[in-house]
Amino acid sequence: MNPNEWTATRALDRLADGTCTVGALVEACLARIEAREPVVGAWEHIDPEKVWARVRILKEGSQGGPLRGIPVGIKDLFDTADLPTGYGSPIYRGHRPAWDASCVALLRSAGAVVLGKTVTTEFAVYHPGKTANPHDPAHTPGGSSSGSAAAVADGMVPLALGSQTAGSVIRPASFCGVVGYKPTFGWVARAGAKPLSDSLDTVGWFSRSVADAALLASVLCGRPALAGPVLPDGPPRIGTCRTHEWPLAGPATVAALGEASERLAESGAARDLVELPDTFRGLAEAQAVIMAYEAARSLAFEHRCHGEQLSPKLREIVDAGNACPPERYDDAQAQARACRASLDGVFGPRDALLVPSAPGEAPRGLSCTGDPVFNRIWTLLGVPCVNLPGLSGPLGLPVGVQLVGRPGQDERLLAAARWAEVRLGSGAGSRR
Amino acid sequence: MNPNEWTATRALDRLADGTCTVGALVEACLARIEAREPVVGAWEHIDPEKVWARVRILKEGSQGGPLRGIPVGIKDLFDTADLPTGYGSPIYRGHRPAWDASCVALLRSAGAVVLGKTVTTEFAVYHPGKTANPHDPAHTPGGSSSGSAAAVADGMVPLALGSQTAGSVIRPASFCGVVGYKPTFGWVARAGAKPLSDSLDTVGWFSRSVADAALLASVLCGRPALAGPVLPDGPPRIGTCRTHEWPLAGPATVAALGEASERLAESGAARDLVELPDTFRGLAEAQAVIMAYEAARSLAFEHRCHGEQLSPKLREIVDAGNACPPERYDDAQAQARACRASLDGVFGPRDALLVPSAPGEAPRGLSCTGDPVFNRIWTLLGVPCVNLPGLSGPLGLPVGVQLVGRPGQDERLLAAARWAEVRLGSGAGSRR
Repeated sequence: MNPNEWTATRALDRLADGTCTVGALVEACLARIEAREPVVGAWEHIDPEKVWARVRILKEGSQGGPLRGIPVGIKDLFDTADLPTGYGSPIYRGHRPAWDASCVALLRSAGAVVLGKTVTTEFAVYHPGKTANPHDPAHTPGGSSSGSAAAVADGMVPLALGSQTAGSVIRPASFCGVVGYKPTFGWVARAGAKPLSDSLDTVGWFSRSVADAALLASVLCGRPALAGPVLPDGPPRIGTCRTHEWPLAGPATVAALGEASERLAESGAARDLVELPDTFRGLAEAQAVIMAYEAARSLAFEHRCHGEQLSPKLREIVDAGNACPPERYDDAQAQARACRASLDGVFGPRDALLVPSAPGEAPRGLSCTGDPVFNRIWTLLGVPCVNLPGLSGPLGLPVGVQLVGRPGQDERLLAAARWAEVRLGSGAGSRR
Repeated sequence: MNPNEWTATRALDRLADGTCTVGALVEACLARIEAREPVVGAWEHIDPEKVWARVRILKEGSQGGPLRGIPVGIKDLFDTADLPTGYGSPIYRGHRPAWDASCVALLRSAGAVVLGKTVTTEFAVYHPGKTANPHDPAHTPGGSSSGSAAAVADGMVPLALGSQTAGSVIRPASFCGVVGYKPTFGWVARAGAKPLSDSLDTVGWFSRSVADAALLASVLCGRPALAGPVLPDGPPRIGTCRTHEWPLAGPATVAALGEASERLAESGAARDLVELPDTFRGLAEAQAVIMAYEAARSLAFEHRCHGEQLSPKLREIVDAGNACPPERYDDAQAQARACRASLDGVFGPRDALLVPSAPGEAPRGLSCTGDPVFNRIWTLLGVPCVNLPGLSGPLGLPVGVQLVGRPGQDERLLAAARWAEVRLGSGAGSRR
């Protein structure tokens, strides 16, 4: 296996034991990008000179850190002081921020090598960028963190930052066949990420194993314990939950959820079917109401001064948000609060719930990034979510499944996910 | 009374009936600033040419809007596309954002005339700017929204934007003798305000009457109903609440709270003493823990790349935040959640609670902006707060009192505040 295909954890081991150098690792990633970028289109901006300058600093200097020498991709929704940041919009083409986003600064402090900026949809909403699905370029990679998911899936970079307001991490992770992780709401600072929705925007990331996602979590959440979630003594308790959106699941997702549930049960995971209470009915619509309402306000300047440069779809969302009566928004927030308050009862003794990641395989065509319907409620609830790859659909494209945990219990969720990933054939242990 | 001393509501009436022009109003404000700025130091940046260009556009154009022609000051924590934005830090001296903050865009859409940027403490934390208290320049105006509070108090501008993470709106409003208003957490989008603490940062503002604060609320919250909160049929029910921080109240605050409580009761407001449950004990410390923890992450870039340009006090806070164990932060958030859940019981049938705004009159000296200890818990709880001026202390400086409401019931709080302001001698009706 080439170094560009390694997990970050494996790369760190090789760097530590001297069987690889940071230069060789970066070289392998850049070579892969050069070879595949014309097909995948994952990157908005790469500046090899800056990358090599950073490699030299790491080589000559004494900077350590848990991610020392690991290449990362940064969704172009996050500000970078040394690279243009366009937020996927023509309004900000060539824009140069005065700072690094907080999570970019934390990555750099941890020794990471920022390889470049990855493609985002317009302001992390729906209007797609140029990225194609690395498994079949006629299909969408999902969005909004399109480039980050595709780059990790295609062996271009082991780790990449994304963000999720509706389903922008878990859905592209499912479509591209990589691990996607969205931590508990509020655990990662959002300074320097272009705001879309104050109550929903959550920083997340992509990796090739749950261990890698956990490692990144320890750095970005500032919680060292997350780096090594203790594997459960016995198999975890995982309930299968179809959610009220189940009628929107296509055959590939129905099959994948069934197979995942079976495989986990075969390995001894306690399994039962969890039904969400009636209070959760309509919660996905509530998320959409909140997102449109808040997006209309967050993008007030762009709408006022550059309205003609917004995509028709985004203008439609902003208009809907502006037209939404505050009472409707308040009701949606009240429903979210009520559901959050009942989560303890929903989870009961279980470590995690197994739920769909997306309606099916990545849809054909690049004009639409797919439907976040199976992600909306979990984002609104603020719970931690992991997409686990390993299964595939009738077209041979990846179909992920999602594990969700209790808010604040990311360590417990990550432990269950590490246990589960091997059973789904997706873990670093099984594949690499 | 000169036009620069009017409330916004009065100015709008005069503009509407043709007895004043936007030009004359702006002229009066600029003249006041020219005369008094050497003493007060409220402004970071004013560009009269841009102000007059805006006045011409309003004069010639057809732009209407509820704030048409009203001058506003913008705390220099909010991005402006046409004026430098320095966040009170030498790191960003001369920085030119690519956008207007969301609330600046909303003000402009409503027809307001942005007069300039007002002084903020360093990143809205403690290190003070140059502003002095207009009532006695040997005393602090409070902070972090120092310039906005002082400018409104000194007759320079009828309305000004601020923000509150601990006590940055209510405290300077109390020290400067103006109305300060912090709406329910989440009601105003924060895009383009330099982030300090995701769970606490709240946009607020200063005015010379509650009606003005309500008018601005209707625009910035996108809730037209807030513009005209219905006055209660009878006197409101207002409980007096000393909070667990009462031992830190100085004689001026003890006297002001007593006098306010008496005057309101004399006018017929049902009055009783409300004790906060024991769960609220230590909540002010919990706010400080959350603020430091989140600030350390939000300012990760500045700390990493420009650490030597942070004030010693801010570096201390960032270091404390970085050293804080996540468990301590989690406990603080858990306490806040528990207290929020019990607010309904605390308020009972009352429309508002009367609580201290600050420990006393504005402290002497400009090296410190005073103690936010009486604001911390209300910011953390996310409740709407109004500072009502009208009373003063032994030095003749203003001492405000604070009305706080239930989360989401800003209309009810504003109605009670309109009723109360007249009784405290602070309303537009009584003074102007």
